[in-house]
Amino acid sequence: MARSTDFVRTEFILKPVGFVRSTIESRRDAPMQGYEGAPDAWIEIERAVADAVEGVQVGEAIIVITWLHAAKRETLKVHPRGNKNAPLAGVFATRSPDRPNPIGLHRVTVKEIAGTRIKVGPLEAIDGTPVVDIKPVLARSADS
Amino acid sequence: MARSTDFVRTEFILKPVGFVRSTIESRRDAPMQGYEGAPDAWIEIERAVADAVEGVQVGEAIIVITWLHAAKRETLKVHPRGNKNAPLAGVFATRSPDRPNPIGLHRVTVKEIAGTRIKVGPLEAIDGTPVVDIKPVLARSADS
Repeated sequence: MARSTDFVRTEFILKPVGFVRSTIESRRDAPMQGYEGAPDAWIEIERAVADAVEGVQVGEAIIVITWLHAAKRETLKVHPRGNKNAPLAGVFATRSPDRPNPIGLHRVTVKEIAGTRIKVGPLEAIDGTPVVDIKPVLARSADS
Repeated sequence: MARSTDFVRTEFILKPVGFVRSTIESRRDAPMQGYEGAPDAWIEIERAVADAVEGVQVGEAIIVITWLHAAKRETLKVHPRGNKNAPLAGVFATRSPDRPNPIGLHRVTVKEIAGTRIKVGPLEAIDGTPVVDIKPVLARSADS
């Protein structure tokens, strides 16, 4: 019980820095990963943080970090990729959107920049998904 | 002003799923990236989410997602890598820890697993840094 209390005691507040505008309207219609046929989508950056976008360039690889607002946060184990024949695995060993903190990582290419709107792709996040951060891919490791 | 209000209206609550235990005790002592000489470190997973770790394997590449609690959230532009001679850039074009939502992405290798403790490295996060998520690196793109 002490540990359970510890778990809820500390909290951090995330605020959206933008939102995804996509033709994908529901989780059912979303590919599991961007490279599995996802479309390009626009990110509308909040005006309050518009200065943070300066220097993002068309053609670059970036990591878009989202808040997967349709996720189930109480889920700790899943059948990977929804395959009921696969043994249950802890969500930290999978990319399931259902997890204690439903943070999404999406490696995409910047296709176009129009003011505070950034077109990126391919992106599997559904329309309305909050964006909480954007980072360049590191040249050294081509990773996050 | 409407937009500024929008920015603060929506919020999401992150809870730590674990904490970093490292020999690095301050930002001043931390390399900018893991591959710049960072040590291995332990992640102590909260008991409440211990089931989520099942399936994480020694030798695997994983993405540790942290909350960079020592960051300045009001920062929108920085000199990249602290180099005052470099022109200011928006934080979304840099890996600065100072940004609206100070989320850290760390690609590391799993070195050892002992119950709910996971040894990973190299990791540049300082001692006490909250961990908010862990994900496998995707084989397809070796990215985040």
